[in-house]
Parts: sequence; C-alpha cells; structure tokens
Amino acid sequence: MTIPDSRFPASGFSATDHALMARALRLAERGAYTTRPNPMVGCVIARGDEVVGEGWHQRAGGPHAEVFALRAAGERARGATAYVTLEPCAHHGRTPPCVDALVDSGVARVVAALRDPFLTVNGAGFDRLRAAGIDVAFGLLEAQARELDRGFLSRIERGRPWLRVKLAMSLDGRTALGNGESKWITGEAARADVQRWRARAGAILTGSGTVLADDPRLTARVPDADIAPPLRVVLDRHLRTPAAANLLDGSVPTLCFHAASATPDARFARVECEPLPQGTGGLSLAVALEHLAARDIGEVQVEAGPTLAGALFAQGLVDELLLYVAPVLLGSDARALLALPPLTDMADRWRLRMVDERRVGDDWRVRCLTA
Amino acid sequence: MTIPDSRFPASGFSATDHALMARALRLAERGAYTTRPNPMVGCVIARGDEVVGEGWHQRAGGPHAEVFALRAAGERARGATAYVTLEPCAHHGRTPPCVDALVDSGVARVVAALRDPFLTVNGAGFDRLRAAGIDVAFGLLEAQARELDRGFLSRIERGRPWLRVKLAMSLDGRTALGNGESKWITGEAARADVQRWRARAGAILTGSGTVLADDPRLTARVPDADIAPPLRVVLDRHLRTPAAANLLDGSVPTLCFHAASATPDARFARVECEPLPQGTGGLSLAVALEHLAARDIGEVQVEAGPTLAGALFAQGLVDELLLYVAPVLLGSDARALLALPPLTDMADRWRLRMVDERRVGDDWRVRCLTA
Ligand SMILES: NC(=O)c1ccc[n+]([C@@H]2O[C@H](COP(=O)([O-])OP(=O)(O)OC[C@H]3O[C@@H](n4cnc5c(N)ncnc54)[C@H](OP(=O)(O)O)[C@@H]3O)[C@@H](O)[C@H]2O)c1
Ligand SMILES: NC(=O)c1ccc[n+]([C@@H]2O[C@H](COP(=O)([O-])OP(=O)(O)OC[C@H]3O[C@@H](n4cnc5c(N)ncnc54)[C@H](OP(=O)(O)O)[C@@H]3O)[C@@H](O)[C@H]2O)c1
Repeated sequence: MTIPDSRFPASGFSATDHALMARALRLAERGAYTTRPNPMVGCVIARGDEVVGEGWHQRAGGPHAEVFALRAAGERARGATAYVTLEPCAHHGRTPPCVDALVDSGVARVVAALRDPFLTVNGAGFDRLRAAGIDVAFGLLEAQARELDRGFLSRIERGRPWLRVKLAMSLDGRTALGNGESKWITGEAARADVQRWRARAGAILTGSGTVLADDPRLTARVPDADIAPPLRVVLDRHLRTPAAANLLDGSVPTLCFHAASATPDARFARVECEPLPQGTGGLSLAVALEHLAARDIGEVQVEAGPTLAGALFAQGLVDELLLYVAPVLLGSDARALLALPPLTDMADRWRLRMVDERRVGDDWRVRCLTA
Repeated sequence: MTIPDSRFPASGFSATDHALMARALRLAERGAYTTRPNPMVGCVIARGDEVVGEGWHQRAGGPHAEVFALRAAGERARGATAYVTLEPCAHHGRTPPCVDALVDSGVARVVAALRDPFLTVNGAGFDRLRAAGIDVAFGLLEAQARELDRGFLSRIERGRPWLRVKLAMSLDGRTALGNGESKWITGEAARADVQRWRARAGAILTGSGTVLADDPRLTARVPDADIAPPLRVVLDRHLRTPAAANLLDGSVPTLCFHAASATPDARFARVECEPLPQGTGGLSLAVALEHLAARDIGEVQVEAGPTLAGALFAQGLVDELLLYVAPVLLGSDARALLALPPLTDMADRWRLRMVDERRVGDDWRVRCLTA
C-alpha cells in the first residue's frame, strides 16, 4: 500500500468521499444560470458522512460556495472535511479569499475535484491550506467537475469558449423544407429543453441567414428561473438585419459582428457592434470566438442554419452537438443539417462521440462531443 | 363487480397470469428464425404459479408449442392452466389439432393472448375447448403477441407482408458519400444486429441500384443460429444484375422481379424470375408485396437505397423503420437517406412513432412504426 502524497491527485478516496463530492457537484449545478462569468462551484462540509453545511456559488460578486457552507456549519466545521468542486481561491477578488475562511473555520481536511486553472489560483489555494496544517486532496470526480465547468475551463485554458451547436432535425437529417419552412420540426418538450441549455450559455450565436428567415428572439425563457441573460450574438457581414428584428429590440445585451466595410446605422442603436476581419466563408470565426472569450464568455450555444453551423464544424471549432431528432421524414428535397465540404474518402468523415441520449417528449435528444 | 364473459377478451387476469404469459411470449420468440411461414407460438402449462411444462413452435411441419408443453407436463397437466400466445388450432393441418391434445390432457383452463385470425381457426379453437368444459380466456398481453407475430398477422389480415426498412446513416442523415462510397458508416455491432433482424424476416428486398453499387449477399448470418434462409428478392426491371452478382449464386432461394418486357437469360438460371406490371416509379410495389404474401411471406426486410426505400415510404407501404445512426457527419454533398416527393407544407411531413431506441456498439439504433 502506498500513502497518497497530498500534493498530487489522490486515489484513496472513500465511498463517503465520492458520495459527498457528487452532492457538491449537484449543488454547484444550481448556479448554472447565474454564476457567469464565474464557474459553478459547490461545497459540502461533513463530519464523517454527516453533512453539517452546504452551499453553492450563486452569482458573480456574491459569496463563494465555501462561505455559504461554512456559515451553515458554524462551529461544527471544526475538524470536519470540506468537499469543494474547485480549488478554493487564495486571492482577494470581489470577495475575501476562501482559503482564509476555511483555515479560520478549523476544518481538518479539504477535498477538491479540480485544481483551479485560473492563473492567480492554480495550486496557490492548496498550498495555503497545507501551510495551515490542513490535509488536502484533489482529483475526486475530476472528469465530472471538468464537464460541469467546461465553459469556464475552455475560456481559461484555450482562450476560446466552449462551443455547443444546437440543431433540430427530422429523422432523415433535414432542418427545414425546401421552401425554408422549419416551424416546427420538434415538439414543445424539446423546445423547452433548448431554453434550459440556452440559460446556461454565456452567449447565443446565430447567423444572418437565420435572422432573416426566422427572426428569432434568442432569449433564454425558463419558467420561474433566475437567469443571467446570455449575450445574443449575430454574424452579419453586411448589416442586413432588419430594423424590426427581435434581435435589435434592446431587451437583452446583444452584439452584432460585421465586416469592417459596413457601418452600423440607427437600426443598431440598442445593440453593440463590432467589426471583424474576413475569414473563410465570411467573417473570421476564430477571431469572433476569441473576442467572446475576452469578454469572459465561457459557453456559447450556436443556433444557426446549415451555413454557419457547418462552417464552425468544418473549421474544427465545435465542441458539443446538441441534436434533437423528431420522428418525422421530410425527404431529400428538404434542407440539409450541415453544409460541409464534400468528402471523397470515408476515412475523412467527421467523427463524434455520443455522450448522452434520451427521449424528450416525442423527440430524441442526442448529445455528442467532437473530442 | 362483473363476472367476465369468457367469449370476450377478459380483464380479470392475475399477476401470475401476466407473468406466465410473458414467459410464453419469450418462449415463442425462440422460434423467430425458424417457424416461417408459421407464426411464433409459445406455451406454458402451470399449476398456480408452478410451471409444469413449456414449449414453443420450432419449425413449420413440426409439433406445435402446446404439444411440447403438454408432453413435458404429462399427468401434471390435469387441472392445470395452459398459457398460449395464440389460439390453439382446431383443424387438421400438418399436425393433429392442438385443441384435442389440450382436452385430452385434462387442463382446466386455457389463457390465450390472441385469437387466431387464420380463417380455419378464428374462434373455432376456443369454441371446441369450451364445449369440452374448459375455462377459456383471451386478450392477455395481446398487444405484445400482435407485435411478436406482426408478420404473420399482416399477411393474414391485410394480404401483404409487414414491411421493415433497414437503413444506416450518419448523424446528419446521409447514407453514402457523394461518390457512392458507403462502407462502412456504422460499426460491427450494428452490422451484426442487422443480421439478427434479417434472420427473422421471410424475405430481404433490395433494388437493382444497391445490387449494382454494393453487390450485397443478403443472407442472414448469425453465429451458431439455425435459420430458415429468408428469400432474397430484387427489383430489377431491365434485368441488369450482373452474372457475377452474389444474388445470382444460387446459395439460397432468390427471386428476381422484372418488367414483362425483359427476358431472363442464363445469368438467372439459379434464381426464380417473376414479371411484374409497371407501377409508380418502376415495377408495381403493391403487386410485388401481394405476390410475396401469397408465397406465405409475413415479414419483409428492405435493404435498399434511397430510391426504393423512398418509393415504399411515399406509397405508404412501410410499417417499420429500423434505423442505425452512426456518430459521424458526412455533410450535405453526401447521399440522402430517402428520396421522397418534395413537401411544401410542414403539415404534410411523414410522421412516425419511435418505439424503441438503444445504443448498439458506438451507434444508436432507433425503431419507428408508421402507424
Ligand atoms: N433546425 C435548426 O435547428 C435550425 C436552427 C437555426 C436555423 N435554422 C434554419 O436555417 C436556415 C438559415 O440557415 P442559413 O444557413 O441560411 O443561415 P445561417 O447559418 O444562420 O447564417 C449564415 C450566414 O452567416 C453569415 N456569416 C458570417 N460569417 C460567416 C462565416 N465565417 N461562416 C458562415 N457564415 C457566416 C453569412 O451571412 P452574411 O454574409 O450576411 O454575413 C452567412 O450567410 C433557416 O431556414 C432556419 O430556419 C434551423
Ligand atoms: N445506408 C443504407 O442502409 C443502405 C442500404 C442499401 C443501399 N445503400 C446505398 O444506396 C445506394 C443505392 O441506392 P439507389 O437508390 O441507387 O438504389 P435502390 O433504391 O437500391 O434501387 C432502386 C432501383 O430499384 C428499381 N426499382 C424497380 N421498381 C421500383 C419502384 N417501383 N420504385 C423504386 N425503385 C424501383 C429501379 O431500378 P430498375 O429500373 O433497374 O428496376 C431503381 O432504380 C448505394 O450507394 C448503396 O450503398 C445504403
């Protein structure tokens, strides 16, 4: 038997450790619609398997998960274990560092799922805890924690947002009739589900083609939910979005990317406009995404037609595909799911990995990752 | 409380009745590859919840399910209940009537899932049992029994086979690259699964397009399984199937439908040829199916390309869609799943009903019904 070195991801976690970290992850997820641009974080304080406090990060600027959990635990935190889904912060941000609160509380052990990749934390939190004599372990349910905070991590680690493409199609892979009619392929339950995925995104991205065809609102509408409104983003080279378009109504923050040659007029008074360099097949998608990451946007949900969605796939910028499949057939005259460059060799097909699939109403939802 | 009238489907079945009929259905299914053209039938003889005999129909010409079960039960059948998935036969066919065997055995009660729609039975079996003082009830798990024997029932009740279209596609609904390459979209597990569905079909139907492109064997290959080989059927108006085609190798019974204007030559020496009248878009599909039903074929599995599969959908002849979806993208230049007439109104889309969906290896399998 080897004694785990607490500087490295430990493997000697108990069943109780697993159960309580799973609970902390579920708590973290409660912040999915509101913590942006901060990561979701959950915290459970327990004595053995008795939970004495729990909390989650609710919104940027508000207290961190650990603070809520320690408050709830009070004196019972002394000698207890704190389970946190992310390394506790060691720096003075908008709130005092959580490591100080943990040290002051007298907890004996801190178990984290993930090391915080954010430069000012990145191991410093663990070091300060250890210096105070606290037993530190991390790496428990790390994959689940990475999945939960994939937007935050993508922005910090790769400098671009996590990109999820949402598409709705018929069983034969069609998104609209030949004449463009596309309302509605999927049922109400699927459309309500889309709203919940929108609500956890920092931005919803579309193309001028969809704006002109469908005039979408692209707001996140989830009954009774508190949602930090995602930024609406449209790629519109020649600023063709009509004055009456829902996207220009100023109801929520909206950003219009356009070519440097186009000049926004009065139509765009209530939205932000940003010129982008030319890229493959239109505006530079890579620059657009960098720009969004620089604005602290971690997760982007794409709700566009085959042109833009296809371009993102072809340029290798897509991380996740959220596909709703309705049990209907539209035939070969109907519109394709994705415009992709022609293949001549089966070996070159785009490969995905199905990560979850379920029925949503009468439709089927499949979620795939590209890596 | 009403006392159930045994002439009508009864509702007063116990939990034991349900469990034992479910067992009889599972037994029946063991005959899936071999009973053709007979229906699959299972039988359980029980005293209370103690099973004293079971059996299933194994092959046409062989003993019926009841005979096997009664043999196993012997004297213990006296006073017992016989659960059969289909009304026991009352006529002398290739074997003596099962009702006589049941009466002779002394069973007190017979529970059937289904009334036999076959003209020479159709209630006569129940009448003879009742006349002998046996308590008769039917309608237990009837929907499940109908599903199991959907091929047999379709042939008897509608005069045409149950039509299952098998298709394999990418996530974006494509069946081959633009250049025709289609090997392989789905993985090995999915392809092995297709073989099991072939094995329960009375015929495998394809079009000349697929023969010319892929030279398929269309045999049912399931390791260690005893299979009554399904009839291979090709629609080939102008008899273009090449001499070296696997379909013409004479290894299993094969039927080639062609236009009356074409005359089979030496290439077709080892297969049967049958002229068909002209129909929409080629040979008459309705006449082809009637012909197959007249040959006692209950279930047809279609393994064709978008032209023939689309024509069958468009003409309303498809009952079931067996779709394998691989987690890959092929793009809009790749071949469509189904050639269907263009739609101009979303209300006219072809609606299906997903009845089961599961992962098969890395692929997803969805089964839909058209009604
Ligand atoms: N089924 C679904 O889930 C779903 C979702 C959304 C939309 N739709 C349907 O999709 C259809 C519209 O699709 P669409 O393909 O015409 O439009 P789209 O993909 O929404 O937008 C494409 C447009 O975005 C702009 N763009 C700027 N830079 C680009 C770049 N680098 N790459 C690609 N595009 C860039 C271009 O227009 P500019 O030259 O003006 O910049 C381009 O034509 C509608 O029928 C709509 O109903 C379906
Ligand atoms: N992904 C899959 O699951 C799958 C399965 C099978 C095939 N495929 C692919 O499909 C492609 C071939 O497809 P395909 O569409 O060219 O051929 P197909 O659908 O297999 O066969 C169509 C041909 O059948 C004949 N036919 C006769 N009567 C007909 C009628 N009433 N309606 C329709 N067809 C009738 C016609 O040829 P005649 O004029 O010669 O009679 C017609 O061209 C190949 O690339 C193959 O790899 C894919």
